[in-house]
Amino acid sequence: MKLYELEKAPNARRVRWFLAEKGMTVETQQIDLASGENLKPEYLAINPRGLIPTLVLDDGTVIDESVSICRYFEELHPEPNLLGQDAKEKALIDCWQRRVEFDGLASVALAFRNSTPVFANRSVAGCPEPTEQLAPLVERGLMLTHRFFDMLDKRLGESDYVAGDRFTIADITAFVTLTFARWIKETPGEQHAHIHRWFETVSARPASRA
Amino acid sequence: MKLYELEKAPNARRVRWFLAEKGMTVETQQIDLASGENLKPEYLAINPRGLIPTLVLDDGTVIDESVSICRYFEELHPEPNLLGQDAKEKALIDCWQRRVEFDGLASVALAFRNSTPVFANRSVAGCPEPTEQLAPLVERGLMLTHRFFDMLDKRLGESDYVAGDRFTIADITAFVTLTFARWIKETPGEQHAHIHRWFETVSARPASRA
Repeated sequence: MKLYELEKAPNARRVRWFLAEKGMTVETQQIDLASGENLKPEYLAINPRGLIPTLVLDDGTVIDESVSICRYFEELHPEPNLLGQDAKEKALIDCWQRRVEFDGLASVALAFRNSTPVFANRSVAGCPEPTEQLAPLVERGLMLTHRFFDMLDKRLGESDYVAGDRFTIADITAFVTLTFARWIKETPGEQHAHIHRWFETVSARPASRA
Repeated sequence: MKLYELEKAPNARRVRWFLAEKGMTVETQQIDLASGENLKPEYLAINPRGLIPTLVLDDGTVIDESVSICRYFEELHPEPNLLGQDAKEKALIDCWQRRVEFDGLASVALAFRNSTPVFANRSVAGCPEPTEQLAPLVERGLMLTHRFFDMLDKRLGESDYVAGDRFTIADITAFVTLTFARWIKETPGEQHAHIHRWFETVSARPASRA
């Protein structure tokens, strides 16, 4: 199998980190979003949405959603478990992963894609057709990012990790969201002490540097 | 356990349909979005994002993402299988479910939330703070909905069902997206023959009326 990705892209980092936690390696190929390599015919033939990361299995099957790629690797290498052991834990981890993805990652992406010059007229990820950047969406993305910081800090005041008492995929998504937020110059404030405590703990994991 | 939902809401329908395929029933309570019951303190105490559906387990655990609720029920009642049997099938179904959710359901929701009078100043689902409706997002939501119809038709020309050769959660999300699209007066065209063939097949399932 082969993983098409981009070293600095947030979604690609989620998958690389997940693989590193499992001690797995796969063949990779870099696809440069800034120069639009992902929208050229060669790559659109692999992934019509022009998204990375994309995993192509040996039989040609294409899996192009980060969480679905992680789910595949979890099934191949169940340990260490990152998606849950029983019905309740699987549902809770999935739920936190999605909350962080929609309320956090998507909010940062909204501000980023609508303000970064390289994405002028490419403001909707996964849509190769021209889409203009909209100023009100930058403001909205920032407001939602601040709400996410507050929500995450509250959660980490109740719980050691995002989805409970151990490290899971929800922590990977949350951590990557925070590092992505630096690209739009947003960081949790002094009032978000729980986030800072958790961020230090998670940073100490070797796989966080994958 | 108890499921907070709203009979006519698209996301609630996804969960009801999933339960019906499994032959399961759970206690439910209706939460009226139109009158803002979901943003009143009583409901925000259960779900701070004010979203439905929300499943509350007997121990108080809250699961408030539709797909995560379905994942919980799949683990409790594995048959009939709707989320996949092995690594590859689980990843593919998850991937198609997410493609349909992000490219289809979210696109219809974008146009709907930014144009429907009852959601004036509540245009972002899951955000109880005021958010004005933006006209360019209606146009964008419609453009993305049309792209989704084309993508879905292409897929259903290659495959009997959305994720492969059998009915799965990805079909539920796609079908509910199409019925939701009628609310913004959008339907697949005559050129989308594969969608119409599949829609008829899926409509014949008793659980589609749940």
